Amino acid sequence: MRVAEVEGPRAGGEAVVRVTVSGVCNTDLEIARGYAGFEGTLGHEFVGVVESAPRDSAALVGRRVVGEINAGCGRCELCRAGDPRHCPARTVLGIVGRDGAHAEYLRLPAANLLPVPDEVADERAVFTEPLAAACGILERVRVEEGERVCVVGDGKLGLLCAQAVKALTKADVTLVGKHASKLEIARRRGVETVLLGELEGARARKFDAVVEASGSEGGLRLALTLVRPRGTVVLKSTFHGETRLDAAPVVVDEIAIVGSRCGRFAPALELLRAGAVEVESLVSETYALADGLKAMERAAAPGVLKVLLRP
Amino acid sequence: MRVAEVEGPRAGGEAVVRVTVSGVCNTDLEIARGYAGFEGTLGHEFVGVVESAPRDSAALVGRRVVGEINAGCGRCELCRAGDPRHCPARTVLGIVGRDGAHAEYLRLPAANLLPVPDEVADERAVFTEPLAAACGILERVRVEEGERVCVVGDGKLGLLCAQAVKALTKADVTLVGKHASKLEIARRRGVETVLLGELEGARARKFDAVVEASGSEGGLRLALTLVRPRGTVVLKSTFHGETRLDAAPVVVDEIAIVGSRCGRFAPALELLRAGAVEVESLVSETYALADGLKAMERAAAPGVLKVLLRP
Repeated sequence: MRVAEVEGPRAGGEAVVRVTVSGVCNTDLEIARGYAGFEGTLGHEFVGVVESAPRDSAALVGRRVVGEINAGCGRCELCRAGDPRHCPARTVLGIVGRDGAHAEYLRLPAANLLPVPDEVADERAVFTEPLAAACGILERVRVEEGERVCVVGDGKLGLLCAQAVKALTKADVTLVGKHASKLEIARRRGVETVLLGELEGARARKFDAVVEASGSEGGLRLALTLVRPRGTVVLKSTFHGETRLDAAPVVVDEIAIVGSRCGRFAPALELLRAGAVEVESLVSETYALADGLKAMERAAAPGVLKVLLRP
Repeated sequence: MRVAEVEGPRAGGEAVVRVTVSGVCNTDLEIARGYAGFEGTLGHEFVGVVESAPRDSAALVGRRVVGEINAGCGRCELCRAGDPRHCPARTVLGIVGRDGAHAEYLRLPAANLLPVPDEVADERAVFTEPLAAACGILERVRVEEGERVCVVGDGKLGLLCAQAVKALTKADVTLVGKHASKLEIARRRGVETVLLGELEGARARKFDAVVEASGSEGGLRLALTLVRPRGTVVLKSTFHGETRLDAAPVVVDEIAIVGSRCGRFAPALELLRAGAVEVESLVSETYALADGLKAMERAAAPGVLKVLLRP
């Protein structure tokens, strides 16, 4: 896309951002497989520089920014309350009705953009969106001091979830995964880690909250065995298609299964600024935007964590 | 069972209750089909008269009572906090490790028994357990004034749930079901009722909370279409076996699916005493205990609501 295609009147009152780096998310891969029926430019994790902005946001021009991905109608009750994340008429960057960040330029409402502090390099700032999603867990489940939280899945999402909960609460956090090398990233941040094959039966029904971040049916099944009666399972991954659920224990043990999608960017940016989470080691590879297809293939390969794209 | 078999030393420090009437629950039917692996006397809804009790509860002898069905170990943290409903070592009347109420006599810890107020006849008091379960919804979801609550399923459980939420909150309550004659029972209590076939698309995503009381996969599917983003679906029925769940909308719309099982008896007894719910019209038929098998068959027949048994 040329800048002429997004700038000027075509920007429709929105800001135009020149993308400097974007991150490939598993949701991109699912959309490419047909999930959500989106046809357009993928990508919702990015850092960029504001090229142009509506007059009332002119101060943003030239600033390095990240951007919240939900753009609401601005008129409904939710939007007026300042949270367009569930606006029924929303567009979502690279997901619903709005071209995304795997491009040279993107458009977003100026209100969605947050300047990135100078001390946060692009390679860290590009994690703002997924880290915000990880922080969003705590909008959906209250975690008290000393409680036990387990995250299932040591992919990039699970690693961010475990670190975010560890950084933002006084809970004991455990990460369960299949890869010693990935678990090690969280372990360095004070998260207890357990290889799936070494998970003991004594852990069953012991966790106040379990975050399902593996995106697999087996992960949900495991989460339901780990959570205590009246505990909460947070569904963090977008499952593709139908999942089999044994609902009887959910009723008998009065478990809550709680969906969690997007979080607010400000707390995530602050975690990145403060160095409270480790994200650099989550970058597996960086590709030129022109090699985007190859990058998507790599991102889908086993063992690969975050793949970045540079226009 | 003869009284000699449960009285005296055999009572093991528990009270012995002579059952005057018991109610057949769908859970009885599911257990008979193999759910929960229970082998013993079925039945967990009853009214009876205390025949004998441990010395420190001697005042109960001769009293007409109902009984909470979870008997805890008395030593774990949950039991010590006064709530044995999730004690991992609990027995449950007619469900887990404890013979039930479709019998001449039953045993329960004296602490589980609540005297029935004189003005509540046996035919009303026998609804205490399922009505308590309906009230238990409000332990699992906070319902504010003016919020919209939908109950899916006009069986006996759905009818009790709709009436309980209506009586205990200031919410707008809607009951969706397939039977005009059943819906009419809730309508008389101020619940808005809608025939399933006449449910309009405009209702989709409009309810703050939806109670799934149909026990069917279709009911859960419907509930997930009716609940608003960030709303709560309460699973009230014990589903038998695996249920297919499309998890993606649960994540995207950040829905909470919350299991709900047993409630406390005291608020339910109070609703019955105050005449705040209609239960008499839920009684379809009454059988002698000796005709228990026939009664179970009838209870499973379409359109039949509550079947009672009298020893």
